[in-house]
Amino acid sequence: MALLFVEHIGIAVAHLEEAVTRYTKLLGVPPYAEEEVPSEGVKTVFFRCGSHKIELLGALHQNSPIAKFLAKRGEGVHHIAYRSSDIRADMVRLKNEGFQLLSEEPRPGAENMWVCFVHPRDCQGVLTELCQPREE
Amino acid sequence: MALLFVEHIGIAVAHLEEAVTRYTKLLGVPPYAEEEVPSEGVKTVFFRCGSHKIELLGALHQNSPIAKFLAKRGEGVHHIAYRSSDIRADMVRLKNEGFQLLSEEPRPGAENMWVCFVHPRDCQGVLTELCQPREE
Repeated sequence: MALLFVEHIGIAVAHLEEAVTRYTKLLGVPPYAEEEVPSEGVKTVFFRCGSHKIELLGALHQNSPIAKFLAKRGEGVHHIAYRSSDIRADMVRLKNEGFQLLSEEPRPGAENMWVCFVHPRDCQGVLTELCQPREE
Repeated sequence: MALLFVEHIGIAVAHLEEAVTRYTKLLGVPPYAEEEVPSEGVKTVFFRCGSHKIELLGALHQNSPIAKFLAKRGEGVHHIAYRSSDIRADMVRLKNEGFQLLSEEPRPGAENMWVCFVHPRDCQGVLTELCQPREE
């Protein structure tokens, strides 16, 4: 089973409004959605770009994983998310290949997706997300 | 004018062979191409993933920009490349919007592309590439 495509690229930003202005200019299109995910301490803003998305991630509070990421690494790419057609099967496949998954089960993520993260240590420093729409 | 889509994501890696093995397992497909770009001090390996690509970047020598990136930041996402339908027009557009371009003219890049980089400071810490196939 192959991961289908990059569903989105998540970019951690220090000032969400400023970043939205920048990326609206860079990409040449305004964002189409924003969403708070309080359980993750994050506010996200999405831009459509071809068949995938750019997700800007701002911290809702200082205990947010995004705040910790910014404190440690500064602004930049936070994760790459790949669309899976069967997230549970891909989780088993990757676990058997020696990848460390950050949850045993898919978890609910933004945009009504099931998500599971793979440890960046196993992906050349890149926090890697598998995702699958929840209605599938 | 809008940037069309993410053409590829470049990931800087310390050990190219090991990284190729990892990403073949992660993505579920083998790479389709590799290329040395001596002018950039880089060896690249490409994976196809939907309509875009994952590019693993290894340093050819210690003066390579990739070696410097790895020394400073470790492995991880090195750049995001967006496909442009008119790279010169997008360069003018972004320059007028206050983005700092890293070259005045498009330069030849891997996979027979014209490329131009935008300073990461202007893109929330993300080194950003515009690219356009040279035959267009």
